[in-house]
Amino acid sequence: MSAKPRLGLIGYGAFGKLTAQHLAAHFDVRAFDPAMTGDDGFATRVDLAGAAGCPVVILAVPVGVLEHTLVEIAPMLSAGALVIDVGSVKVKPAEAMQRLLPDHVRIVGTHPLFGPQSARDGLTGLRIAVCEVRGARDARRTAAWCRLRLGLKVFNVTPEDHDREAATVQGLTHLIAKVLLNMEPLPTRMTTASFERVMQGVDMVRHDSPAVYQAIERDNPFAARVRERFFALFDQARGELDG
Amino acid sequence: MSAKPRLGLIGYGAFGKLTAQHLAAHFDVRAFDPAMTGDDGFATRVDLAGAAGCPVVILAVPVGVLEHTLVEIAPMLSAGALVIDVGSVKVKPAEAMQRLLPDHVRIVGTHPLFGPQSARDGLTGLRIAVCEVRGARDARRTAAWCRLRLGLKVFNVTPEDHDREAATVQGLTHLIAKVLLNMEPLPTRMTTASFERVMQGVDMVRHDSPAVYQAIERDNPFAARVRERFFALFDQARGELDG
Repeated sequence: MSAKPRLGLIGYGAFGKLTAQHLAAHFDVRAFDPAMTGDDGFATRVDLAGAAGCPVVILAVPVGVLEHTLVEIAPMLSAGALVIDVGSVKVKPAEAMQRLLPDHVRIVGTHPLFGPQSARDGLTGLRIAVCEVRGARDARRTAAWCRLRLGLKVFNVTPEDHDREAATVQGLTHLIAKVLLNMEPLPTRMTTASFERVMQGVDMVRHDSPAVYQAIERDNPFAARVRERFFALFDQARGELDG
Repeated sequence: MSAKPRLGLIGYGAFGKLTAQHLAAHFDVRAFDPAMTGDDGFATRVDLAGAAGCPVVILAVPVGVLEHTLVEIAPMLSAGALVIDVGSVKVKPAEAMQRLLPDHVRIVGTHPLFGPQSARDGLTGLRIAVCEVRGARDARRTAAWCRLRLGLKVFNVTPEDHDREAATVQGLTHLIAKVLLNMEPLPTRMTTASFERVMQGVDMVRHDSPAVYQAIERDNPFAARVRERFFALFDQARGELDG
């Protein structure tokens, strides 16, 4: 038996695994994912109730199945548990958690602004957004923990402010990446430094799941507006050159 | 009097200055530019004939005024002089130099795949494309000189092969940069590593002159076709998201 506090991790995809790797030193991680085949060095495989019943529960499921997951775990949560999501958007998940989880649990929204690619060399200096959802003190404590224990650079923001910035930062990056990846094979020989930087950015999201793209482009209430402006400016550039 | 061989530099804009800074150790650089107000530590200001009469002449003028410059300097060139251009495209300049310069001069086309931003920390390891235009031996010697004396990574290519790759490498980078720069101010706080890489690429071409953009997008015979494909894929992504 471990003396470390139990932490339930629901969703063991690429980001769930990364979470377990970095939290295993601090918690006894109990993970649930239908696709998980066994324990690994970082997490013990449990059933949904085994993960949802922990004092801290991290939701690392695609944003698209979050509501369904919340409905399922609502009756399984312990009194006073701290529930944290890690989705790429924050307005919709915050609203859903507030609406669907029992009053006795505390809720914090987070968005780690990194993934397995950018975290390859460790977490120090990487960014995370932390949003108060239910309990200002819990948001503050989660932020402090991320800063002190994981070395992350923390931004305390509202879900709205988060999504407004992410609509540009992630919305445009993933859109540009999608188009450039569709143009492959791209030159790798007579490249310029600027082209290489752009392609390094593309490479960092190359292996992101389609669910991440969907969440960023569709589940962010500000993404369509940013995209609209981006496309209009592209049309303008196109008109100037080929019009 | 300097014992170094004379080199005439026609055009003393951002790239002309960079050229002088790196060639001053090897040549007595004589520069001509109507906008040049005096000597600097790297080049002596001369009139057009003073630059065009040197044994080596580098053309660092915008691609858009190259033909006009060639007509002007044609009667001023010394017998056997080596004329080298540094334009961002190669098919049109190679054809124009071949057509407009006297038979007694040797001609090499080059495209240094860097600018003042990417060359901030020196030239070593940066790339240059070298194209044979008139005289295979001169192209080979220019390539060897760039490799040995400047530490550049050299690609010997035909003007056509150069422009075909550059249509993607530079055509797309500058187009994406133009649109993103039009969207400023962009977020600088809650950024992801991938967004930051893309923006580093944008920053490297941020100060390029409109003439560089025009040359890359308009004077490259393959650029329009690459752009067409890029826009079609954007329209497809747009349709899938907002359709």
